[in-house]
Amino acid sequence: MKPQSSVPGEDNSADQVAGNGLLHRRALLRGGMVAAGVAGAGIGPGATSAAAEQLVEPPWGLQVGDDTPPYQTPSKFAKNVARTLSNPKFEPRSSIARTPHHLLEGTRTPNGLHFTINHTGIPEIDPQQHRFVIHGLVKRPLEFTLDALLRYPMTSRPAFVECGGNSAPLFSPKPVQADVQALHGLASCAEWTGVSLALLLEECGIDPGAKWFIAEGADGPHLIRSIPLSKGLDDAMIALYQNGEPLMPGNGFPMRLLLPGYEGNMNVKFLRRIKLVSGPVMSYWETQVYTEPMPNGKSYNFDFLNEVKSYITRPSPGLDLKQPGFYEISGIAYSGKGKITKVMVSADGGKSWAEAALEAPIQPKAFTRFRMPWRWDGRPVILQSRAYDDHGSYQPTRPEFVAARGELDAVPSVLAFKNHHCNVITSWAVDHAGKVTHAYA
Amino acid sequence: MKPQSSVPGEDNSADQVAGNGLLHRRALLRGGMVAAGVAGAGIGPGATSAAAEQLVEPPWGLQVGDDTPPYQTPSKFAKNVARTLSNPKFEPRSSIARTPHHLLEGTRTPNGLHFTINHTGIPEIDPQQHRFVIHGLVKRPLEFTLDALLRYPMTSRPAFVECGGNSAPLFSPKPVQADVQALHGLASCAEWTGVSLALLLEECGIDPGAKWFIAEGADGPHLIRSIPLSKGLDDAMIALYQNGEPLMPGNGFPMRLLLPGYEGNMNVKFLRRIKLVSGPVMSYWETQVYTEPMPNGKSYNFDFLNEVKSYITRPSPGLDLKQPGFYEISGIAYSGKGKITKVMVSADGGKSWAEAALEAPIQPKAFTRFRMPWRWDGRPVILQSRAYDDHGSYQPTRPEFVAARGELDAVPSVLAFKNHHCNVITSWAVDHAGKVTHAYA
Repeated sequence: MKPQSSVPGEDNSADQVAGNGLLHRRALLRGGMVAAGVAGAGIGPGATSAAAEQLVEPPWGLQVGDDTPPYQTPSKFAKNVARTLSNPKFEPRSSIARTPHHLLEGTRTPNGLHFTINHTGIPEIDPQQHRFVIHGLVKRPLEFTLDALLRYPMTSRPAFVECGGNSAPLFSPKPVQADVQALHGLASCAEWTGVSLALLLEECGIDPGAKWFIAEGADGPHLIRSIPLSKGLDDAMIALYQNGEPLMPGNGFPMRLLLPGYEGNMNVKFLRRIKLVSGPVMSYWETQVYTEPMPNGKSYNFDFLNEVKSYITRPSPGLDLKQPGFYEISGIAYSGKGKITKVMVSADGGKSWAEAALEAPIQPKAFTRFRMPWRWDGRPVILQSRAYDDHGSYQPTRPEFVAARGELDAVPSVLAFKNHHCNVITSWAVDHAGKVTHAYA
Repeated sequence: MKPQSSVPGEDNSADQVAGNGLLHRRALLRGGMVAAGVAGAGIGPGATSAAAEQLVEPPWGLQVGDDTPPYQTPSKFAKNVARTLSNPKFEPRSSIARTPHHLLEGTRTPNGLHFTINHTGIPEIDPQQHRFVIHGLVKRPLEFTLDALLRYPMTSRPAFVECGGNSAPLFSPKPVQADVQALHGLASCAEWTGVSLALLLEECGIDPGAKWFIAEGADGPHLIRSIPLSKGLDDAMIALYQNGEPLMPGNGFPMRLLLPGYEGNMNVKFLRRIKLVSGPVMSYWETQVYTEPMPNGKSYNFDFLNEVKSYITRPSPGLDLKQPGFYEISGIAYSGKGKITKVMVSADGGKSWAEAALEAPIQPKAFTRFRMPWRWDGRPVILQSRAYDDHGSYQPTRPEFVAARGELDAVPSVLAFKNHHCNVITSWAVDHAGKVTHAYA
């Protein structure tokens, strides 16, 4: 007699806090609901315990396994937990790799799966040969080697990095049928360690005329961006480590600029110099690319902040529901302004909302995981999340977003280059068969 | 005219807070000290800025780089940032891989570099075939698939895992000449996400006679350990994710038991069953291995907790000092009992101590990074760290530790199997040439 299979429960109407089966955050901690969810009758413990001790031995219990590598990588059975590539044949154009949020959990993106965008491939930079210079409107221009930076005081902090073009498919007038990786996979969150830029600027001595700085990368594109000096004196960092180890090659090894909360492109990778200047230089990326047109014909320019955003990662397209019953809704929220204070979840397309549980500690400008218990009764529903931050910002509804920012009719793969900084509420439709698709509501 | 090279400073006697150059934690934030450290005179900003704009272009700025992989791995220039292997030829014995603490930073160990110990290699477990059973003294024995567990409410938390044999070389009567990876590399810290064991036990219904449980792994050794039920009802977790992605194969994929603060071996990997029982079963690992002899002839048995510990990771053996001047002393501290409250650092072998800065947020049973500014004047010194936790525990001095636990004369590689739970203060000697070695003080 085998142990009873377990799936979580069904009968918990008393705990419902919003429409279509959203449950009280603490429902499960009281135990009754989960116990109620066990299908079928209990089995005498003696009989089952004996059965459990007669388990059929799987092959991995009967043989020697694999050897131990110096740097371990995921199981071959987890090979779907990978980034999707925009340019798998490495043709002469940009290469974009997106984070598979629907297959991840917690609040840190593992380094292997951090999103990357590189415009002429990933440079192989010898850290012993690399130099970083601070010059321009400073009293003492200085050149730093990696070894010199390693002697400076360091700090660690989590911070998300998000491409300005993340979520751009949601500018489309009709919901692009894609998964959360394709829609929102250009954001990731790591613990970064490095040297405060403010400290290095102080060492150089800032000329009173300096109001902005230009950061430049060492790889082929020599990408440059203009950044207000006030950000450089606030929480900017010369990052040397990503989740504890040296930066990944695609994320800027051996050093990058980290501007917590500012669009990804400004967090210049392979950083080779910072020049203090009196005003912005109107570079390609800040004028031709990250200047966002509005419906009234004007444009946002120097629009740096990643606004407050959230999305449900499970369930989501590709993770269909196999049967009615209990599920945990799990997702991530973040804001370039500061801390997430609240995430509301709806299962009825925004008619009613319930407050999700947030994983502590909540850290500013970093991913916050939200969770909401949910009992699906088998009928079609629309799942949504809406995040709020400690600066009073919250995600717009679709009508609000379209009124302010407009829509763009383009093929989905091109949208990322057409408009930016989309933080509209994301909606997932669950049909009667449990299939999950992208929807507008 | 090139920009001035920068190394941090020398003249900061006013900030000294303990012997041999330990500085006030906030010394650097006041700016003056770092500025004082620039060797040579300032250079006119105009000339240097022009020079900086005539940088010789390195090869990676002139060519297309590498393609983008689905799962990114470290730079070939960071290949020394790797685990050391006890059994590189994969002979028929245990395989141990140690974390390179001296080359890492922050508070999370990246998954590629998390320590592992596997006794018959690393199993390739098909997660769709794997089953986890809870049985024994329960009302309803239950069997869980991975898909079923993924529907349960989850939680995330950072937790270190440390082998009971970590730091065992410090039982030697003479300081074993090895680096921090060899001495303390059997501890790592990740963010783990999974299902509360208490929740699953409640679902099974606990028989009043149950006081302990046995956890068993699915791989060749079928390792079993006896664990008090009280721990299972406290913060034990069935972990499914490690730093956001599915567990690494060497760390228990597809699921492991996580017992925050308890010795690594008890955090059973490849978990296939938990049996509730009335008392401990005296298994091989808890009687033959992790029972620690004391000088008085008695032994510690069922000694689960990883006591409070710390070590300086930079400088440390292998990271010699090239010249006098400013350095940041950086290290990690942790306690299986709770939070680190204080880390004291000494540069004079324990004669005087200064309190290090701790990176926030400080989380219980997780790595805490400590930092201390230090000016090395070129004379021989002994660097030490001593951690304190919120349960009133602190690391013993060497005389205190030897009095309580004794010493063991064995070849260093064998020590890990002779005695356990060593948390004595670690000392690094810096000689007049800047060479760093392991010392007793």
